[in-house]
Amino acid sequence: MGPDEFRRAGHQLVDYIADYQETVRDRPVTPDVRPGYMRRLVPAAPPERPEPWDDVMADIERVIMPGMSHWHSPQFHAYYPVGNSYPALLADMLSDALGCVGIAWASAPACTELEVIMMDWLAQLLQLPEQFMFSSGRGGGGVIQGSACESTLITLLAARSCKVNEFLRASGTVHNEHGDPVVTPDRAALLPKLVAFASDQAHSSVTRASLLSGLRIRTLPSDSNASLRGDTLTKAVEEELRAGNIPFYVLAALGTTASCAYDNLTELGPICERFGLWLHIDAAYAGAACVCPEFRHIIDGIEHATSFNFNPHKFLLTNLDCSALWVRRSRDLTDVFEVNALFLKTPFSEMPSYRHWAIQLSRRFRALKLWFVMRLYGADGLRAHIRRQVKLAKEFEALVRGDDRFEVAAPVTLGLVCFRLKKYGNMINDHLLARINGARRIHMVPAMLPGETYVLRFVVCSRYTESRDVQFAWSEVQKHTDELLSSAEVLGRGKMLWSSVRAASIGLRLFHSWHSV
Amino acid sequence: MGPDEFRRAGHQLVDYIADYQETVRDRPVTPDVRPGYMRRLVPAAPPERPEPWDDVMADIERVIMPGMSHWHSPQFHAYYPVGNSYPALLADMLSDALGCVGIAWASAPACTELEVIMMDWLAQLLQLPEQFMFSSGRGGGGVIQGSACESTLITLLAARSCKVNEFLRASGTVHNEHGDPVVTPDRAALLPKLVAFASDQAHSSVTRASLLSGLRIRTLPSDSNASLRGDTLTKAVEEELRAGNIPFYVLAALGTTASCAYDNLTELGPICERFGLWLHIDAAYAGAACVCPEFRHIIDGIEHATSFNFNPHKFLLTNLDCSALWVRRSRDLTDVFEVNALFLKTPFSEMPSYRHWAIQLSRRFRALKLWFVMRLYGADGLRAHIRRQVKLAKEFEALVRGDDRFEVAAPVTLGLVCFRLKKYGNMINDHLLARINGARRIHMVPAMLPGETYVLRFVVCSRYTESRDVQFAWSEVQKHTDELLSSAEVLGRGKMLWSSVRAASIGLRLFHSWHSV
Repeated sequence: MGPDEFRRAGHQLVDYIADYQETVRDRPVTPDVRPGYMRRLVPAAPPERPEPWDDVMADIERVIMPGMSHWHSPQFHAYYPVGNSYPALLADMLSDALGCVGIAWASAPACTELEVIMMDWLAQLLQLPEQFMFSSGRGGGGVIQGSACESTLITLLAARSCKVNEFLRASGTVHNEHGDPVVTPDRAALLPKLVAFASDQAHSSVTRASLLSGLRIRTLPSDSNASLRGDTLTKAVEEELRAGNIPFYVLAALGTTASCAYDNLTELGPICERFGLWLHIDAAYAGAACVCPEFRHIIDGIEHATSFNFNPHKFLLTNLDCSALWVRRSRDLTDVFEVNALFLKTPFSEMPSYRHWAIQLSRRFRALKLWFVMRLYGADGLRAHIRRQVKLAKEFEALVRGDDRFEVAAPVTLGLVCFRLKKYGNMINDHLLARINGARRIHMVPAMLPGETYVLRFVVCSRYTESRDVQFAWSEVQKHTDELLSSAEVLGRGKMLWSSVRAASIGLRLFHSWHSV
Repeated sequence: MGPDEFRRAGHQLVDYIADYQETVRDRPVTPDVRPGYMRRLVPAAPPERPEPWDDVMADIERVIMPGMSHWHSPQFHAYYPVGNSYPALLADMLSDALGCVGIAWASAPACTELEVIMMDWLAQLLQLPEQFMFSSGRGGGGVIQGSACESTLITLLAARSCKVNEFLRASGTVHNEHGDPVVTPDRAALLPKLVAFASDQAHSSVTRASLLSGLRIRTLPSDSNASLRGDTLTKAVEEELRAGNIPFYVLAALGTTASCAYDNLTELGPICERFGLWLHIDAAYAGAACVCPEFRHIIDGIEHATSFNFNPHKFLLTNLDCSALWVRRSRDLTDVFEVNALFLKTPFSEMPSYRHWAIQLSRRFRALKLWFVMRLYGADGLRAHIRRQVKLAKEFEALVRGDDRFEVAAPVTLGLVCFRLKKYGNMINDHLLARINGARRIHMVPAMLPGETYVLRFVVCSRYTESRDVQFAWSEVQKHTDELLSSAEVLGRGKMLWSSVRAASIGLRLFHSWHSV
């Protein structure tokens, strides 16, 4: 494919993309295909000779679209939003065309420099404490990761190294009664004693981080608001210390996956400082709301944090992948990976070598997305987006509250409404969700709240969602509720026919396929 | 930004991208900026109000381009190639616009299904053994990872779990003299005994994988051809066994980072089978050449492998990121991460749940790139690309061999030529590279071969590189060699003035900033 053909194909695809996005509401939000549907649509082997672009273009509708869930449909209310906007699309086109690899400042200076500046811009937008900004000159700064999973894992590993080094350093100064230095404790002997903490509402990626790192993460019970409280943490830390273990890391979730609950940062923060624990904040979804002053209180207590993570690729109109991580001391990260420290003590080290800040060495030019999004929306435009989405969720919440059959199961703080049929058990609620999703006019996934309470999750995801879509979603919920409750299937409170039991649990599976690892 | 403005901006950007790529040879290949150059070009804070697209577009040339290394310039001969092509650019545009997340089959069926089919297509192109293909129905298959780093890490972790489970299972059947089952060996006690192996030429990501996983990786000496041989492995395995340790994993590199050397797979394979070791093949760069029958011998012995990885985003015209990993038994991967096994025993599990195959949960629709590239080039087109690049490297090799002052320091098998001034030491060769790179007309990075032999690496990277560019590169090398050797700076064999010593080591730093972690 030469440049002229690319120009023609590119223009055609730009128009197709605009058409797709502007008319996505007219497509069924989820597909009606069975596993393996594509095998009969695509040859079993690659072609020997080049195919014409028009054939490839035509196959988007023939092969791909029948199997798509339209995550940006205004009827998509599942998971959490995944960012998407025209500015971010344009930035990714440019990033792909430049095709540089930002492994070091010298390998593509613009790639590192724009990331440094954009992370400071973002920090200002969220009113993060100064110590997280490069411009403060205090050793902190931000980096773009691929996902919150990676941010959790890398901070966990950094915290491990810091704590182990702290022990090794401390032990180096200890002398025995004869004045001889005491033998340095074995690093390998320290590792099994390390213990991290997270709430039972933390994302499943925390379990993954534990599996990957081989480090123990102790799950702590959240309170009735699904929030991890200070006294719970204090008790656990003291237990571990008494058992001879070494507490080193706390993951505080702000805006949990299940119900957008918030661990109590103002309680947890001082405890972490008292016991010398790395405090990592996972605000993957909710963090973006801090661009609005009225939501900034969400991260009150952040001044205690060692690291802070949120995903612009969730609630901030930026395409996957763009997960923003700030650390108070960048040395904590780089010390984990930096093997060739000698070679980096060069003038180049005035700029961060971002490959030492991440799991992957290769780095695409992702800062362009943040630059285009922040400039083409402006801070005002981003705030307007967040406020519009929250307002729509509040509208849905009011509809739920206006129907006696339902209850709102968790406080609605941002774009998520957790609700359920209040007189029926989990199975009936799951069955209701299965019916709603089965009709393929809207799409939601469920969650299990503390106390084994099954809820339906309505999330305002798409930037195309409007009041009429909220009203439509609610009319779908009501229609299927009416049918379900009036049908012979429901014999009494909580009882169902076998045929219904079989149909149920699809929603729960969908949720687990997302939430659990 | 509304759809009409996106159409206008998108068309403009498509044309800009075509212009950029077709005229990239006219730009200096590397930038002339100092760290921090961008701070004076970009405001310190994000704008409150949206800015017009034209201002953003204009800033590509004003802010970004002055700080770019042009990785796709025909004068860029550094590192290894990073894939880039018009078909891949188009596919990424579509992927971004669909913006789905392939965490499970159900979350975006087309995303999982196309990946399954494309990994089988690629396996056929490379003539991989049948057991690596989904279509064989034997439990193997392929997955797209972000990088070879991730592929190494995930297979290392999988191998760890397999070996530990093997020990735990075996121990479960052991009974003592009274017929009572022997206590199951503690998992934690097994981990420190595990030992993996890789050659001293393996990529630095192997060290990272060790740091991340906490697992010990023993570095083995390569032979004079930078190849890991069977007897070296056998000796090391037997040593570890005698010491009571548990060998479990071997990383064989095919096409090393430094010199594109090849571990001896036909020797290593049977040894791995004999001792029950997971054999992972890292053919990140070289693997792509197997699309040509004449290069397929590179992976001879692959039938012994447990897993195989190469990066289409290197030598196969596919944009970052797209790292192809195949495993013989997909269960080995999923067992590491699959916590909710109960919920996955559903009809959906007829298709892989790819989030259990990777570090990250979130997955972009990357299979589109492979689909567009394989269709719009055809197998023939991909073969022609590989052959053209190798032919250009051979042309450069002949030029080096035609100059008595130089030697070719490693066999030229694909697109890399390692060469050096043969009568001078490492410092003079490094100084030569610093002069060449300093002129910013071509760009290379160095490597250190076994025996502390410093070499200049000439790699055919860009799809725009032609014979005239190879000739130009050689003329640059000759010009700077003439100047260096005739200048007062070189006082004799291996001696330099202090001013030159200071100027040197820039190249070495560049290499280390890439190769080492």
